[in-house]
Amino acid sequence: MPIRWGIVTAAKICHDFVNAFNSYPGDKGDAVIAAVAARDKSKATEFAKLHNIPKVFGSYKEMAESKDIDVAYVGSLIPYHYELAKLFLENGKHVLCEKPFCLNSKQVVSLVNLARKKNLFLMEAIWSRFAPSYIALEKEIQAGKLGELQFVEVNFGVPVSEIARLSKKELGGSAILDLGVYALQFAQYIFKDEPLKCTAIGKLNSDGVDEVDNVILEYSGDRRAVLNIHAKAQLWNKATVYGTAGRATVEDPFHFPDTLIHVDGKVEKFPLHTSNIHYNFDNSAGLVYEALEVVRCIKQGLIESPRMPHKDSITIAKLEDSVRQQVGVVYTVDSQEFP
Amino acid sequence: MPIRWGIVTAAKICHDFVNAFNSYPGDKGDAVIAAVAARDKSKATEFAKLHNIPKVFGSYKEMAESKDIDVAYVGSLIPYHYELAKLFLENGKHVLCEKPFCLNSKQVVSLVNLARKKNLFLMEAIWSRFAPSYIALEKEIQAGKLGELQFVEVNFGVPVSEIARLSKKELGGSAILDLGVYALQFAQYIFKDEPLKCTAIGKLNSDGVDEVDNVILEYSGDRRAVLNIHAKAQLWNKATVYGTAGRATVEDPFHFPDTLIHVDGKVEKFPLHTSNIHYNFDNSAGLVYEALEVVRCIKQGLIESPRMPHKDSITIAKLEDSVRQQVGVVYTVDSQEFP
Repeated sequence: MPIRWGIVTAAKICHDFVNAFNSYPGDKGDAVIAAVAARDKSKATEFAKLHNIPKVFGSYKEMAESKDIDVAYVGSLIPYHYELAKLFLENGKHVLCEKPFCLNSKQVVSLVNLARKKNLFLMEAIWSRFAPSYIALEKEIQAGKLGELQFVEVNFGVPVSEIARLSKKELGGSAILDLGVYALQFAQYIFKDEPLKCTAIGKLNSDGVDEVDNVILEYSGDRRAVLNIHAKAQLWNKATVYGTAGRATVEDPFHFPDTLIHVDGKVEKFPLHTSNIHYNFDNSAGLVYEALEVVRCIKQGLIESPRMPHKDSITIAKLEDSVRQQVGVVYTVDSQEFP
Repeated sequence: MPIRWGIVTAAKICHDFVNAFNSYPGDKGDAVIAAVAARDKSKATEFAKLHNIPKVFGSYKEMAESKDIDVAYVGSLIPYHYELAKLFLENGKHVLCEKPFCLNSKQVVSLVNLARKKNLFLMEAIWSRFAPSYIALEKEIQAGKLGELQFVEVNFGVPVSEIARLSKKELGGSAILDLGVYALQFAQYIFKDEPLKCTAIGKLNSDGVDEVDNVILEYSGDRRAVLNIHAKAQLWNKATVYGTAGRATVEDPFHFPDTLIHVDGKVEKFPLHTSNIHYNFDNSAGLVYEALEVVRCIKQGLIESPRMPHKDSITIAKLEDSVRQQVGVVYTVDSQEFP
């Protein structure tokens, strides 16, 4: 019996996820896209037709309560992540939830507790960590080729500050959530440790949402990271790891790079598979790798991925909380408690 | 009558300065290297022989009091900059003083006041500002090609933390002084304004000297700069200016780059002249451009360069003070007053 994916919303990212999955020429570990749900059923129907998906739901609850899927891919707007992931977990479905996981760490902890109680797989969709280039970088670090790690530098800047999703507080708008999550997770991926201190200098828009964040993370052993997040300028979006023996860089776009500059200066390419259907976002074909990881974990009976474990999502969410608190971005849910 | 340079110390940077000047094939504006002084006269003699300099002094005071020079190039260790620059100014000589100008802003203000009182030319040797690539970048900015400036990003990291000059407090050791001055001046060069706020996170060595500094500068109009200074790792030493219409990058080594990436992506090269004599530091041939500026200014009766004015040196020194204060680097001279 294959692992059956249920796609939650017909959003652009869901389109890319399904496209990446369906067009992947490699072994998909006996998994299929089984259903799609959207509040507007006609959108779900259109989505299903384009991607050849057998089942359509006009309600998330219906899909969650159905026997038609095993794992939900939640690709909604951020403010709905918590409720939707909860809905599917409560109905016994595994969940892969788009990043940033939730609006704050209290919501993330609540979801993690629920998944553990229910013995269900749960993962934040940090697809970067499953990029072949990231895995190659990690191998280079583990082989000691960079020496002792000292400094991580990440830029993520795209002029998206006028897009509602980024600029409206009620939509969970926030540069540190939308873009910053990639930079924060990169630092965590490299240092594998919680920072001792996080210093953030931000800039808010008129709706009280951060458009720019410069973040300095201090780790034990004098390691540190500097993250520059910008929703108004197109930065050079690279991530570099500097060690005592040299440096390695994942090239722009670092959040799913197809190019790694090794410590010896060698440039290695990691080409992605193609599709006849158009992608909405850069290098989206790479979304397949996180899907394959989810399938692999579920088949092995794991409730979290060793490569993107619950504790990393909690740490990242706490850092997002810390940055928002320092720069002054407050959501309604921040004053609420979650079970 | 030519403008006659007196070289103060036979240090490596003085060697490069004279080499750059003497080998320059262009118009040197009727100026000559007339003398060199070092406390160890044999070193000055050897230096003079290599560079074909007519006059040698075994004492700075003797050279300052002589009628043999018009302008002193002070290339000593940082802790001697203040006293040496003062000595030459008091004796009626113009002064070009190596960067960082002094140990703190009180010393810089004192020198500036003295130069103004004496009506003598005084400049901090920020040679970067006279690089043809910097001038091309400035033209691009002034033509509006980058749109409204938003963000400046500079890295300067070189593994020099074991060198005494960098690591000993009594020698004025400090990453923010030795390397950081270049990054601070770049931000000032671009934004032409004093920052409203400076936030610095540093790391000290066992002698209480900063080896790492991450600095966030906030300017009016939501402009900001992030400077990463590292004395233990070889960073990608580039400087990038991001505006609403695009970005431009001066390539590694940004402190005197021979390559500029224009906003349209075009890569422009600015080749330096060569010399038969070996240089100690990267791109040192470029030192000639600041020398030519000094000669030009003196001939025009200016006491400061419009391209590297006194107020910029004072602002940079105050930022260095601020960073040192935040990260905890204290010099003996910080508690002293200067006339």
